[in-house]
Amino acid sequence: MEASSITCQIPSAINDIHLIKHALPQWTNVEGQVLVKFAASPINKVDMMVLSGSYPVSPSATHDGAPIPGFDGCAVVVRSNSSRFQPGDLVIPARLGLGTWRTHAVFPDENLIKLPRDTPPLAAALLRSNVAIAWLLLHEVIPLKAGDWIIMTAGTSCVAHFVVQFAKIEGVKVVLVVRDSEEAEEDRERLLGLGAEMVLTEAEVVARPSFPEPIVLALDCVFGPTGEALLDVVATGATYVLLGVLRGINETVILKAKHLFTKQITLRTFRGSAILAQKEDGGVEALFDGLAQMFVDNLLTIPEIDVREWPVDESVMREVLERVQANTPGTRKCVWLFKDD
Amino acid sequence: MEASSITCQIPSAINDIHLIKHALPQWTNVEGQVLVKFAASPINKVDMMVLSGSYPVSPSATHDGAPIPGFDGCAVVVRSNSSRFQPGDLVIPARLGLGTWRTHAVFPDENLIKLPRDTPPLAAALLRSNVAIAWLLLHEVIPLKAGDWIIMTAGTSCVAHFVVQFAKIEGVKVVLVVRDSEEAEEDRERLLGLGAEMVLTEAEVVARPSFPEPIVLALDCVFGPTGEALLDVVATGATYVLLGVLRGINETVILKAKHLFTKQITLRTFRGSAILAQKEDGGVEALFDGLAQMFVDNLLTIPEIDVREWPVDESVMREVLERVQANTPGTRKCVWLFKDD
Repeated sequence: MEASSITCQIPSAINDIHLIKHALPQWTNVEGQVLVKFAASPINKVDMMVLSGSYPVSPSATHDGAPIPGFDGCAVVVRSNSSRFQPGDLVIPARLGLGTWRTHAVFPDENLIKLPRDTPPLAAALLRSNVAIAWLLLHEVIPLKAGDWIIMTAGTSCVAHFVVQFAKIEGVKVVLVVRDSEEAEEDRERLLGLGAEMVLTEAEVVARPSFPEPIVLALDCVFGPTGEALLDVVATGATYVLLGVLRGINETVILKAKHLFTKQITLRTFRGSAILAQKEDGGVEALFDGLAQMFVDNLLTIPEIDVREWPVDESVMREVLERVQANTPGTRKCVWLFKDD
Repeated sequence: MEASSITCQIPSAINDIHLIKHALPQWTNVEGQVLVKFAASPINKVDMMVLSGSYPVSPSATHDGAPIPGFDGCAVVVRSNSSRFQPGDLVIPARLGLGTWRTHAVFPDENLIKLPRDTPPLAAALLRSNVAIAWLLLHEVIPLKAGDWIIMTAGTSCVAHFVVQFAKIEGVKVVLVVRDSEEAEEDRERLLGLGAEMVLTEAEVVARPSFPEPIVLALDCVFGPTGEALLDVVATGATYVLLGVLRGINETVILKAKHLFTKQITLRTFRGSAILAQKEDGGVEALFDGLAQMFVDNLLTIPEIDVREWPVDESVMREVLERVQANTPGTRKCVWLFKDD
């Protein structure tokens, strides 16, 4: 077997990122040691921030001294010196920075979390940064019950894809907001088909529509005029959560005293990693296991993804990274899918 | 004994508010009935809102069909058909709307809460709307511990007076913000003497001072540029609470994505009455009793108050109400103090 890794400098000019081939990582027969082969590794926003040097956590993995990026992904156990893992087990990293943009890695067992073996690799690769975040947004912001209405911007995002599906299972009604674009009608049809209760364009939300029921939660990835419109359309006592700043960190919202004082809206942000970090021993593993099992049981579907087979040609790799970096609205989630040997 | 009440129409032109003299309210010897004589009744913002017809709760008390305003105050039990109260007991209303701007009233006992008999009447009259609110602000917004720094606008307010004193007892450091005025230096001296850690004018806060320690909580009664400055000076992860809109409900704040997303500030409002309503049986009584006892034990001082002896001349009464209505910055809390017979 031949191994390969993407290595780079941090911060990295995309031309300095290379796919290198090398021997399998060294197996030293240490107690608790596990050799894995990656199955699928997504390119997340955080990975691009790491490459640009704007993320506070750096890769802890290196090859010949060069950092190996990739914070998320899933792998299959090839060889194990740990009683907790058997060859064939499907695993995901237990913490950030382990380097998932490579075929093979040797980890101590405490760095891995086991998932059901028949979890689809693409689902497992999205589990932490997309599936679990969507689940936490519905369960760890405010108490939601069947019949509640919520609104979410970036309606075509991977997280929104899972928010809609979890909400549908629990009877929560989701209004999705999509950007104003030529694809808006197509997006609307697709997202209604997925289970969204309503789909509006940003312009339609700024026009302050009314809703059949009060909106108790707004999940906003856009801010600016769209965020402001959300404050106007949500119900008294609602919570507004800023999840991302797709239009850039310099956007502002005109916050009215009425929003806070009369409508009693609470405004806050959300850090999924902080919530996961507060879970008691075993809580995170149980959550990931349960979510993965929902894919096995066909309760969740995987969104349309830009799958790139590994090993990739370096020029293709750079083109992919540049496209993800540019972050054009509607860019699909991109995942490295590792070929079986 | 002669009784008197202030009666009015709701909404009320101040000229239609009258102080009328009348016989003591009827004592019908019903089980649980309590006759009280008021000792002190404040004029709170909510009372002025009731008079102007802009508060959702109307007075439930009337005399000859005319509403009796006054939501807050303390009284002494004169006669009791309830095992819970003895003549001489000091009491406050258990709910809003009972009509406290009168000398005498007959209430069912469930409408009254007993305080320690030696509580100063002025303290008892401020207990619900000022003392308890200050206590809740320090205990029911975020967990605070000794050494934490907080900032509060409307630094010369009655609530700020008690926030500073509770904070001092618990080792919490309070930065008070006072309006830019000729009295600012005098206010600064007085509030530092009371126990504030720092006193700044609004202009000084807008100039974005730095603080020796991170500010974890902002209690804002002003909004607008002052509120915005608070968002800039508080620490990452801080909570900003809008308590009032002294500059008017149409004020706005330019909320930056950085405030929410990078600094992870939570913005919300605060309703003391909602928090009290959620307390279990006996919780409110125990809280009020404990706070009143702090005055008995000389742990708390009463702020400078504009005390008006009752019965007041009608023209004086109207002048007082007009002054409170105008709400000029620096207007002292006004309290009707009832003469002993």
